[in-house]
Amino acid sequence: MTGVLRPGHAQLRVLDLEKSVHFYRDILGLVETGRDHLGRVYFKCWDEHDHSSLILSASDSAGVDFVGFKVLDAATLDRLEKDVRAFGLPTERLPAGDLLETGERVRFRLPTGHLFELYAEKTRIGNGLPKINPPPWSPDADRGMAPTRFDHCLLYGPNVAGNKELFVKVLGFNLVERILGPEEAGEPEIGIFMSCSHKTHDIAFVEYPEPGKLHHLSFRMPTWERVLRAGDIMGMNKIPIDIGPTRHGVTRGETIYAWDPSGNRFETFAGGYEPYPDSDPITWTFDGFAHGLDYPQGKLHETFLTVVT
Amino acid sequence: MTGVLRPGHAQLRVLDLEKSVHFYRDILGLVETGRDHLGRVYFKCWDEHDHSSLILSASDSAGVDFVGFKVLDAATLDRLEKDVRAFGLPTERLPAGDLLETGERVRFRLPTGHLFELYAEKTRIGNGLPKINPPPWSPDADRGMAPTRFDHCLLYGPNVAGNKELFVKVLGFNLVERILGPEEAGEPEIGIFMSCSHKTHDIAFVEYPEPGKLHHLSFRMPTWERVLRAGDIMGMNKIPIDIGPTRHGVTRGETIYAWDPSGNRFETFAGGYEPYPDSDPITWTFDGFAHGLDYPQGKLHETFLTVVT
Amino acid sequence: MTGVLRPGHAQLRVLDLEKSVHFYRDILGLVETGRDHLGRVYFKCWDEHDHSSLILSASDSAGVDFVGFKVLDAATLDRLEKDVRAFGLPTERLPAGDLLETGERVRFRLPTGHLFELYAEKTRIGNGLPKINPPPWSPDADRGMAPTRFDHCLLYGPNVAGNKELFVKVLGFNLVERILGPEEAGEPEIGIFMSCSHKTHDIAFVEYPEPGKLHHLSFRMPTWERVLRAGDIMGMNKIPIDIGPTRHGVTRGETIYAWDPSGNRFETFAGGYEPYPDSDPITWTFDGFAHGLDYPQGKLHETFLTVVT
Amino acid sequence: MTGVLRPGHAQLRVLDLEKSVHFYRDILGLVETGRDHLGRVYFKCWDEHDHSSLILSASDSAGVDFVGFKVLDAATLDRLEKDVRAFGLPTERLPAGDLLETGERVRFRLPTGHLFELYAEKTRIGNGLPKINPPPWSPDADRGMAPTRFDHCLLYGPNVAGNKELFVKVLGFNLVERILGPEEAGEPEIGIFMSCSHKTHDIAFVEYPEPGKLHHLSFRMPTWERVLRAGDIMGMNKIPIDIGPTRHGVTRGETIYAWDPSGNRFETFAGGYEPYPDSDPITWTFDGFAHGLDYPQGKLHETFLTVVT
Repeated sequence: MTGVLRPGHAQLRVLDLEKSVHFYRDILGLVETGRDHLGRVYFKCWDEHDHSSLILSASDSAGVDFVGFKVLDAATLDRLEKDVRAFGLPTERLPAGDLLETGERVRFRLPTGHLFELYAEKTRIGNGLPKINPPPWSPDADRGMAPTRFDHCLLYGPNVAGNKELFVKVLGFNLVERILGPEEAGEPEIGIFMSCSHKTHDIAFVEYPEPGKLHHLSFRMPTWERVLRAGDIMGMNKIPIDIGPTRHGVTRGETIYAWDPSGNRFETFAGGYEPYPDSDPITWTFDGFAHGLDYPQGKLHETFLTVVT
Repeated sequence: MTGVLRPGHAQLRVLDLEKSVHFYRDILGLVETGRDHLGRVYFKCWDEHDHSSLILSASDSAGVDFVGFKVLDAATLDRLEKDVRAFGLPTERLPAGDLLETGERVRFRLPTGHLFELYAEKTRIGNGLPKINPPPWSPDADRGMAPTRFDHCLLYGPNVAGNKELFVKVLGFNLVERILGPEEAGEPEIGIFMSCSHKTHDIAFVEYPEPGKLHHLSFRMPTWERVLRAGDIMGMNKIPIDIGPTRHGVTRGETIYAWDPSGNRFETFAGGYEPYPDSDPITWTFDGFAHGLDYPQGKLHETFLTVVT
Repeated sequence: MTGVLRPGHAQLRVLDLEKSVHFYRDILGLVETGRDHLGRVYFKCWDEHDHSSLILSASDSAGVDFVGFKVLDAATLDRLEKDVRAFGLPTERLPAGDLLETGERVRFRLPTGHLFELYAEKTRIGNGLPKINPPPWSPDADRGMAPTRFDHCLLYGPNVAGNKELFVKVLGFNLVERILGPEEAGEPEIGIFMSCSHKTHDIAFVEYPEPGKLHHLSFRMPTWERVLRAGDIMGMNKIPIDIGPTRHGVTRGETIYAWDPSGNRFETFAGGYEPYPDSDPITWTFDGFAHGLDYPQGKLHETFLTVVT
Repeated sequence: MTGVLRPGHAQLRVLDLEKSVHFYRDILGLVETGRDHLGRVYFKCWDEHDHSSLILSASDSAGVDFVGFKVLDAATLDRLEKDVRAFGLPTERLPAGDLLETGERVRFRLPTGHLFELYAEKTRIGNGLPKINPPPWSPDADRGMAPTRFDHCLLYGPNVAGNKELFVKVLGFNLVERILGPEEAGEPEIGIFMSCSHKTHDIAFVEYPEPGKLHHLSFRMPTWERVLRAGDIMGMNKIPIDIGPTRHGVTRGETIYAWDPSGNRFETFAGGYEPYPDSDPITWTFDGFAHGLDYPQGKLHETFLTVVT
């Protein structure tokens, strides 16, 4: 309870910007909210209130540039900046406005090699519904797959143990679930799912030799029926699917994993339980993880473990 | 509209009877309704009214012994017997009582090599709900996967064209959907889905060199949410899954295919549209069938085409 | 099994035509398919194939002009025409083209005073999906409440017993469920739900002193979740609701009843079971009907019994 | 972010203890976890981990004795005790063990007249699932209505403004939604929905002349389909329903309100959005609240405003 509120934004590298804009806006169904002088394109999910949660940046390689979490206020930002430095990580301040409608960001590199940011300010532009006597959804709720929010991300890199220490001890996250490695390797934690709220995960990491890799960005769907509707839209648009629809054992979430036009994996995710901050973590053994990944099939889809950007 | 009402029963060969009884009764959640002097075990789905729809028969090979459809009455049975003979197929009468609580059956071998039966009488034992002021479901609706009915079956064998002629011209079925073979082969119909009601299929056939093979028996689930619940139960019991959960393009149905302890494939199936008898058939090309099988993934799961019992 | 296929069309009297067109097209979400020289406006549900299932006719009183059922072919039409006359009802032939894209209609007045029609021909314009490799739904499936088909209607009038005899003995319908009157009145059937398919009802009648009244037209929704979405749209548009969302005990269907701008009641209806033609009817006692109408609440909503057009 | 975690327990007064135990255990489907020397009976929802969330106490009047929230740890409890006193409310310490398996409780009376408690310790007995490789649900998830957790409560009393100040300024809750009174009365807040997490409400209050009244305890359901299943079980058991199934405009939640055998209202509640702590409150005007209460119907059910225990 350190004042870290939620995953706020991720900047994604895409190979063909306009093709990607088409995908994220018209097929996934995000709301385009701006473009900046660097050519970056900003999006939010329909039910999000802040200006943007996804930024597309043209590049010659796919992957994630950085992930940012929103914190409660400027004082929290200052305090956490000091705490992160005390933990031993150098931090950098990016000026307000460097991202559209976004305040100063404190950036540092995680032990797993990912650029991670904290920020306290982002312009609230609303979810398209009035604040007085609102209906339960807007027309955007039926446009494309229409996720409600950027939910979490899963990142791959070395030294997951270092990230765990940082997120739990410094940033105040809870360890909600974890995956152990093989018994013969002494069962280290090779996967950790952590929350700064009572979601099953606001961020997750899996051990991987190469630093700074993206496994997937996850977008929240209201129901299992809407996950299938997302799957239908994937089929209509020939979006390549990795896994699903199915239920994860981990988090109990209902899911489809698929790939965007650049090969970045994304998830349409519903359901799951809501762990309160005093919950004890759930453990998946290396052998049990097949059901953790795909509960009905109990299948350890090879691509889940190996394909990242 | 010849008076063929519905798929009534299927007799399934299983390798280990008690293991299979456990599976069909306690995991799939059927209601055991009797055992006969041959050791066969009879089941019905909770919302079916007739005595039995699935009969297990111990054997040293898996597969289906025969499939039977119920017809309107004895006169219909007599008439259809004559029509089938006139079509050129020899028929045989099995005496009432040969199957528990079941009247005389007219049996004949389909062009695809399957034993097929018609019958007019089966004792109605009810669905466990009163006929006066009934509640919408019984406690059995939560026991195991709890399908509501034996819905249809898909059978593999040679000469699907012969079956089509028999079912459409003699038995009064409608062709609802069909799959074409590869263009270079002249695009014969390699799969046909036929209905004697306004279901998307009461029976289906796929071209296959070996006669008399079973692809799957299908059990009806009320909703997509209950399909996932069935998938959860498969995961809990380590039931091997072939495909799903997903949506078929063919029939639009929501599905999981899995295997019983003997390797017989079964389906838990929900949704789909309801074609009236005057509808025009839908065609799936050989190339398009990947989406016909798994609409979101557009994946031509190899096992679907090759694994039968 | 006389060849009566389904409810095909209903002509509805509305007070303000353009307001009604807006309601049925933009709020309920039907597809407008034509207007004729009498100013009538034709609609179909998105997943119907025939030209039209609802016709709006401007009038100074609300209600239903007539209901028409499609039959298999011209021969069936001729045969049923004779059978209806033999039953003692005069019949009239309306010429092809009197309704847009519709063949000759055989019309007669039911014992309950309603104009009822049979016809064999209506131009098939399709459901907006290709007949080859179709996706599972079209963009129209998200426009307004987006029912998939005109499902059934409930009509009020005197002499329900006469209708039952006609529909069961002449037209080949099955009695699926029935409501008994009060015990002190000798428990006559005051409500009957009949099917010419394996739907729980294709048409229903309730005893009422005034002839020819409409209780409601029912539109089919794919799921309970879509029934709620329809309810949301009713709330957004201030459509007056009579009952629901809730589940009927009768048919087990999931439902909302509401009123169109002219005061004609309509239903958005999902779920329910699928009775085969050999099923035994379910009986609701007068006292038990409160749960038959609203299973959770067990409440005999007064308006259901008294408000008709 | 003061360390108040969640609604932990409520002690409910019931008129006939064994009848109430039957209702809460066998019909609502809670898990009975203990009885104490005062005859109180303890329950938890199947997916809760702490020993108990509902305590039934025999009485000659219905209502709620007290509601308790769990806080992070003993230090938090001490700090909040001081803060509440500084706010001007006297507090009392109840010894550990006064409630079964529960640590010391700090109790005080809210401005609205309700006894409110904070506590840091309650024995964790788990949710019946293993902590290693768990399945997604236990057999208890199908027993009765089977809510997953005690979600929130709505309490009626005078001086809602006083409660708001206490909960927002001292206990760190967020105001998520609010209902205004009539314009002619100057539009005071007559209803407030507050969260200490990102639920739409962990506790809510409505202005009412009589202090200390209970409007309802709310139990969480996984889906809208399970809300209907709860409604079916209400119908099967003739549980009197107040409102629903329907959707609230307030919180967007899917709901049924009904009464326990003592006349205490309870809710089966699913869905809703998940407001992060930096969200702006939503306002319902007095005139708009009809849709806030029942979004489809837009109906201001009289009982909601007047019937409390």
